[in-house]
Amino acid sequence: MTKYAIGIDIGGTNTRVGVVTQDGKCIDKKLIRTDDYNDVNLFVNDVSDLISILKDNLPDDSEIIGIGIGAPNGNFYKGTIEFAPNLKWKGIIPLADMLNKKTNLSTYLTNDANAAAIGEMQFGGAKNMKNFIFITLGTGLGSGFVAGGELIYGSTGFAGELGHTIIYQGGRKCGCGRLGCLETYCSATGIARTVQKKLFIDKRHSILRNINIDLIDSKSIYEAALFNDEIALEAFEYTGKILGLILANAVAVTSPEAIFLFGGLALAGDLIFKPTEYWMNYYMLNIFKNTVKLLPSQLPDNDAAILGAAAMVWKNEQK
Amino acid sequence: MTKYAIGIDIGGTNTRVGVVTQDGKCIDKKLIRTDDYNDVNLFVNDVSDLISILKDNLPDDSEIIGIGIGAPNGNFYKGTIEFAPNLKWKGIIPLADMLNKKTNLSTYLTNDANAAAIGEMQFGGAKNMKNFIFITLGTGLGSGFVAGGELIYGSTGFAGELGHTIIYQGGRKCGCGRLGCLETYCSATGIARTVQKKLFIDKRHSILRNINIDLIDSKSIYEAALFNDEIALEAFEYTGKILGLILANAVAVTSPEAIFLFGGLALAGDLIFKPTEYWMNYYMLNIFKNTVKLLPSQLPDNDAAILGAAAMVWKNEQK
Repeated sequence: MTKYAIGIDIGGTNTRVGVVTQDGKCIDKKLIRTDDYNDVNLFVNDVSDLISILKDNLPDDSEIIGIGIGAPNGNFYKGTIEFAPNLKWKGIIPLADMLNKKTNLSTYLTNDANAAAIGEMQFGGAKNMKNFIFITLGTGLGSGFVAGGELIYGSTGFAGELGHTIIYQGGRKCGCGRLGCLETYCSATGIARTVQKKLFIDKRHSILRNINIDLIDSKSIYEAALFNDEIALEAFEYTGKILGLILANAVAVTSPEAIFLFGGLALAGDLIFKPTEYWMNYYMLNIFKNTVKLLPSQLPDNDAAILGAAAMVWKNEQK
Repeated sequence: MTKYAIGIDIGGTNTRVGVVTQDGKCIDKKLIRTDDYNDVNLFVNDVSDLISILKDNLPDDSEIIGIGIGAPNGNFYKGTIEFAPNLKWKGIIPLADMLNKKTNLSTYLTNDANAAAIGEMQFGGAKNMKNFIFITLGTGLGSGFVAGGELIYGSTGFAGELGHTIIYQGGRKCGCGRLGCLETYCSATGIARTVQKKLFIDKRHSILRNINIDLIDSKSIYEAALFNDEIALEAFEYTGKILGLILANAVAVTSPEAIFLFGGLALAGDLIFKPTEYWMNYYMLNIFKNTVKLLPSQLPDNDAAILGAAAMVWKNEQK
């Protein structure tokens, strides 16, 4: 009997459902559009059908041991999605219970970054680590904190929102409704805002001026930086300096042995790693200096969220 | 056979050694001056002698099950005090091992704030809590973070240094050698610095002008505030606003059900609790609003460090 776990990655646009092996390989997956479903009941029906199809595709001696879901505003304790701004389903959605009733499979749910942190611990670069921080630099900044080998869920089940720590009072407007959150500076969207502002107040030449200012994204900034575009290079330095400071502060609280960077902006490699690492060490309290590695995530970019979601199943069902 | 634990509170000036019951009462204690000892070996000899005296004072059917030490820059994993700026013993001091060899008792060591956090969990207001933050507002700002029922020691054993997170780049000079650490604003010393600066740049009447500016401390500011002194009241508001913001940020990371305030400045009661609570809730991310209680520590002020140190023994020996 070969065992598999189902990993589900729910985003505002798409939902991906994958079959994951015990050693962290996604061997099959299906996609449906999240935003096609105004009614979450219909969504659960169709996801459940997808799981049946995926199961039927497996060899006869296969067993699915459970379902893991990574979702925005996911609450691990309750298995609920609560007031997710980017989903059509409003209020509190007991998604884990709903899927469990449909499929009879143990179902776990947490937010996407926490799921990915567990993925890094089960299958990636944090396999032998008890204390680390996982950071996703995508549209926002997501994070998962692991201490003593356990993900920190906190009393609410929502812990790990480093992206929504306020770093500048009265700073940039955040999607959460407040001002100055870290993710408005340090994320794929954040660096784009930095460049847009720079292009406006700074009259230097930049190849980024050839792009419609509203279409500038972290990828175009990365490409401009590869051509030594000063505005692009300074935007990476600026982003890395802020991120480095905040990571040094996070180290003072949980003292991880490593911090993993994942997501679109992390793919810029040295352009973002070098300034972040420099300033992290610059701002670090003495007793923590040289105790923390800044590493790229070892999860594959395209399947990370599915693997992370499935990793919760492997972690919890193996206990 | 009645069991007791020894709690040792090492400060720069004094060391207190106490006998603590399983329900958290310090029934006897002795004091020696830490700064009398240039040689840590002599200190260990005399502390060991004190423990013998304390033991001899107990009834015949008594057993001492272990020693807990709270010390500046204490490393829980190694049982060492490392590069403590306020102690005469330089470098890395394997104090837990040294005392264990002298006394044959299991010996645990961590920093003072972490010890007090464990004390709050074993004997105080956090008895039934799995997720909380403990903050001491004394000369500095110390903190202990508990997640899932376990104190966060991190990979180094030094985790929980919220006081040394940098909140203003280029801000106030800190004893750690860096600029802008939280404890330079939010601590008994921090509020005194705030008032000293206010008295210099602000020409309003204040009864605090009757005190030599270098002698102003959190107690005199508290007393002035009780007389509605504007400078003193604004200093509490200013301190509480910064602390509230940083606590809201800490909540986003570990999602505690309560935050306990302890130490000299916390004794100011509503003067510090009200602005801190107001601004903490003001700056809180939506999903965490109304999930966190701000509470005074329930550890007795005079014996808290001894109780906290002894609590480590009870926590670890009962496992």
